[in-house]
Amino acid sequence: MIQRVRGTRDFQPDEMGRRRQLEDILRKISRDYGYREIQTPTLENAELFTIKSGPGVLEEMYSFEDKGGRKIALRPELTAPIIRFYISDLSNYPIPLKLYCISNCFRYEEPQSGRYREFYQYDVEIIGSDAPDADAELLLLANDLCRRLGLSDVRFRIGHVGIVRSMLDGTPVKKEEQSAFLRLVDKKRMDDASEFLKSRDVPSKTAGRIMEVCNTKGDSSVLHAIEGDAAAYLREVLRIAETDGAMNLTVDLGVVRGLDYYTGIVFEIDAPELGAEKQICGGGSYSLSPLFGGKAVPSTGMAFVVDRLILAMEKGGKAAGKENTDVFVLAASESQRESMIRIAGSLRRRGVSAEFDLMRRSMSKSLKYASSRGARYAVMVGDREAASGKVLLRNMESGVQEEIGLEDVAEELEKRLGSAI
Amino acid sequence: MIQRVRGTRDFQPDEMGRRRQLEDILRKISRDYGYREIQTPTLENAELFTIKSGPGVLEEMYSFEDKGGRKIALRPELTAPIIRFYISDLSNYPIPLKLYCISNCFRYEEPQSGRYREFYQYDVEIIGSDAPDADAELLLLANDLCRRLGLSDVRFRIGHVGIVRSMLDGTPVKKEEQSAFLRLVDKKRMDDASEFLKSRDVPSKTAGRIMEVCNTKGDSSVLHAIEGDAAAYLREVLRIAETDGAMNLTVDLGVVRGLDYYTGIVFEIDAPELGAEKQICGGGSYSLSPLFGGKAVPSTGMAFVVDRLILAMEKGGKAAGKENTDVFVLAASESQRESMIRIAGSLRRRGVSAEFDLMRRSMSKSLKYASSRGARYAVMVGDREAASGKVLLRNMESGVQEEIGLEDVAEELEKRLGSAI
Repeated sequence: MIQRVRGTRDFQPDEMGRRRQLEDILRKISRDYGYREIQTPTLENAELFTIKSGPGVLEEMYSFEDKGGRKIALRPELTAPIIRFYISDLSNYPIPLKLYCISNCFRYEEPQSGRYREFYQYDVEIIGSDAPDADAELLLLANDLCRRLGLSDVRFRIGHVGIVRSMLDGTPVKKEEQSAFLRLVDKKRMDDASEFLKSRDVPSKTAGRIMEVCNTKGDSSVLHAIEGDAAAYLREVLRIAETDGAMNLTVDLGVVRGLDYYTGIVFEIDAPELGAEKQICGGGSYSLSPLFGGKAVPSTGMAFVVDRLILAMEKGGKAAGKENTDVFVLAASESQRESMIRIAGSLRRRGVSAEFDLMRRSMSKSLKYASSRGARYAVMVGDREAASGKVLLRNMESGVQEEIGLEDVAEELEKRLGSAI
Repeated sequence: MIQRVRGTRDFQPDEMGRRRQLEDILRKISRDYGYREIQTPTLENAELFTIKSGPGVLEEMYSFEDKGGRKIALRPELTAPIIRFYISDLSNYPIPLKLYCISNCFRYEEPQSGRYREFYQYDVEIIGSDAPDADAELLLLANDLCRRLGLSDVRFRIGHVGIVRSMLDGTPVKKEEQSAFLRLVDKKRMDDASEFLKSRDVPSKTAGRIMEVCNTKGDSSVLHAIEGDAAAYLREVLRIAETDGAMNLTVDLGVVRGLDYYTGIVFEIDAPELGAEKQICGGGSYSLSPLFGGKAVPSTGMAFVVDRLILAMEKGGKAAGKENTDVFVLAASESQRESMIRIAGSLRRRGVSAEFDLMRRSMSKSLKYASSRGARYAVMVGDREAASGKVLLRNMESGVQEEIGLEDVAEELEKRLGSAI
């Protein structure tokens, strides 16, 4: 038996229904906030991601050489492709350009619980605004999305890479070494971070102050003790985000993301009720366009893990049930099959979903199948009823059957199902 | 500047809108006919496709070795993955199992007009019925889909591989050579096909009759001259398909598909108004499960080329226009920005899409942006109006402005847009 590739998934109908339901919610909220959907290819030139994240990323990606010897990768994330697309085709759009994308991404690592080699992201980007309002809008949208999914406990942890970077600017730590320091902080290796500063001859008082800032957590008031433009900017983002209702916002200056292209705020969103898979989103403002050969443009964005949002939707009680066929049509005899097919056709033309028997089975077997498909009504075309221009309409739940005119059955069912749907 | 991979595409917002609109139509019609959506991974073990189509297919696929030395492929089509999935997880579902899938597929060939290395298919499968009703239902659904897309000229060409195969059974042509002959016929290399029969010492009278059948085209009456179960089965499929309205069906016994796993009817659908890209669908009944290590199960299915369906939708005048934001909210001064954000929030909570200024731009620049986003209304929060609890509501099309109470504006816009949407 040929197996599925390890770490990948097939989706059965019920699960697929929930995934499409989530996508509808994501499209609706994106539209409500004025974001427009785009799509990029599954395949990209691998250098797009090595330029962004360093050659180490090759190890974590599916990549291969094509026949022309070019290194190709299955996209591991969506921000780099969107910025590549922006540079080549979207830079004439009026700014701010507000985009989103719901797509699969790939990573090549040992499969483990909740982490798949093919996974899905909901990615939201604002290109062209350097105002705190753009960052704040991401938080507003994220908070609203969690509410719509029924998540009752959502926690935002927000930092700003500029705060620590500007403190490092005044020390012997070289500009190009800053990211190495930030990566240690991002991984909560605080002792190593402290050691790093010491090894670069940062005066101990300054080093102490830097480490203190990296460990700063609390509500927005903790920012009052911190000087500089970055802290003021972050305060402003928080103020705007809370304009239209409270959010569970925590300032955490240890959220820093150790990659060079992050320029401003960085944030992560947790939903503790999801347990081990509680982090549902990461985001921040960045400058990628110049790395890819484009002009500098302020950008901010975030990416949600779709698989975790589905968990959230289920926990929040927002997941819909199984999707069923409305009506099953069956014929008591060979001679009634044409009538059966025409009834199904007239139901479909009215927007009612209808199946007819494709197996030439007996009435009782067909009814059993109709029941397995969750049909609400069965229309039975019998010889005796047909002779007087009637069919038998069966309510599948109650079992009640009634005779109804062959010509009236489609209209009647449209009415009954219309009010029940 | 980093380029897109050759032969792949990015989709801009307007085009993406049309693609999602088509998907909605495909989901709706699938549901109307009682099909349920599934999804399989982008990556499959390459042998799934080499077993199905022979090792030659490796040349036409994106395939590579993973770190464990396994040959992996980006799926070139959807039927083989669906049957793999059926064998592993879906074989306990009541039959007939009616499934569909809308997914991207990949092929590794020189890019050319209308053929992309990453393309999309709408695939429909019925597993478990060997009755002609199942084949006929595919034709019904396909015809209905073309009608919904606004295609006025759609032509079905239908054959049955059993007709020629059963004639070959009585000749010196070996069973395992039949597919080679059918491939020649499928490619319309009729002289080579004729030569093939001669080289196998098929008596010239028999060979002449076989070639005559391969060249048979016309309405269902051409089948009366042909003996055997396969022709009778095909007649029955055509009869059922035309039960609920006429279709443009042509019998073409030269449509044969030279692959061993096709077992019964085979068909292709053309929409001549699409020009060079007129073939929009191919399908037929097949037996793949035993090749993959599963039990034999009758199956029939078809795959549409999504890119051509989008062309069809555009030609048929069914493509929707640009998707816009309903309302743009802007503030005349810094002090009105909080009010601006709250108005946008209250609109979104009513399901009205609303953007607010993220650039801190002047009123006139913001109105220009709002206009580029196609907003139908702008809400302007000015200092003078705000002092008396009002805002200015501007109809973006007519330019007419009116004062309206700050508290009433969301409800009022919900009403106006609700009746206009």
